Amino acid sequence: MRDAYFDQLDSIVDDLVAMTHEVQTAVSRSTSALLTADAEKAERVISDDADVDAAREKIEARCFELLALQQPVASDLRMIVATLRMVADLERMGDLSVHVAKVARLRVPELAIPGELVPTIERMAAVAERMVGQAAGIIAERDVEGARALEESDEEMDQLRRSSFRVMLADDWAHGVEPAVDIALLGRYYERIADHAVSLARRVVYLVTGETVTADLG
Amino acid sequence: MRDAYFDQLDSIVDDLVAMTHEVQTAVSRSTSALLTADAEKAERVISDDADVDAAREKIEARCFELLALQQPVASDLRMIVATLRMVADLERMGDLSVHVAKVARLRVPELAIPGELVPTIERMAAVAERMVGQAAGIIAERDVEGARALEESDEEMDQLRRSSFRVMLADDWAHGVEPAVDIALLGRYYERIADHAVSLARRVVYLVTGETVTADLG
Repeated sequence: MRDAYFDQLDSIVDDLVAMTHEVQTAVSRSTSALLTADAEKAERVISDDADVDAAREKIEARCFELLALQQPVASDLRMIVATLRMVADLERMGDLSVHVAKVARLRVPELAIPGELVPTIERMAAVAERMVGQAAGIIAERDVEGARALEESDEEMDQLRRSSFRVMLADDWAHGVEPAVDIALLGRYYERIADHAVSLARRVVYLVTGETVTADLG
Repeated sequence: MRDAYFDQLDSIVDDLVAMTHEVQTAVSRSTSALLTADAEKAERVISDDADVDAAREKIEARCFELLALQQPVASDLRMIVATLRMVADLERMGDLSVHVAKVARLRVPELAIPGELVPTIERMAAVAERMVGQAAGIIAERDVEGARALEESDEEMDQLRRSSFRVMLADDWAHGVEPAVDIALLGRYYERIADHAVSLARRVVYLVTGETVTADLG
């Protein structure tokens, strides 16, 4: 009985890592849809989000089962509570990718992003996607050092966002209101994806050390 | 021992309701700061957010204590898990009010919102604040009917947001990019506050009926 219990705990971690990779794919694919005005890819992100939601439900159901049947204490309990929070983060990250995909879809066959801001948005997306990938590794390896390093990527995201505002609010901005609104919202979506990646990493720190990191996220 | 345990469960609900009212105040005060360009009120929302965070930590700590020491099962376990999620929603709602306050502060002594969009933003804020107030009542009374009704307010929010986009993207929009970006983000913040209020209500439904409401939020 006890062995089956530990197997279940291990397999929850595997499922968390798999779910994180699913979300990473959603981030990457929605960005690609955005930067190439690819309606089909955008649709794929939107329809595949049901799989992310299903992964959350499956992992949650197993956590509840363990809580109810095994009455775990100490570090096992902490792991289950952390997992419940991580799947909530991951589901939101999937939703945010759907928002990116919907902006892309809305503007097809046009590109939503004027050329001069493509590099900034590309960079934001790359930072977000890399952070999600790192989070997967951090969860799999319980990598506390990696988790602490992830916070720094978040600062890069803030800088990119500020730089996008500088461009849009400059006197020579020639693209009007619509792309500016799109970019402000896209920047927010990528920033939130990054915040959730940091949040995943912090939960691993909590899991391993019992220590809560409280610095504020957006 | 068992009596003290039930007292603790009851007092967690009281604390949740109190925390919800704190968040309601933050929503209301940040809106007032926004609509009157009141820097002092904006600062107050920003500094008071530490209290919201502290409320979350306090409630979480007590949930963990109950989980570890009492090993609750069935409906008590469900209540504690739902509480952990509700405090996460509430903390985010507090953060979103801080974002509203920061937009207000950034534009002082100017108003962030052009006159023609003040009624729309006022209405969005009123809907969000009302939903937070209703969520408090729903939590206090375990009001499943009220929880189901709350979903409808969320549709009103969607309509208001669409209407704000129509105004900003019309040919006769004379205010340029900056207020449009502010309004797009403010709309997003109020929409997310409303989403979290719906999420609080759904957790009460789950708590009382065991039934999960899965319709998607933004």
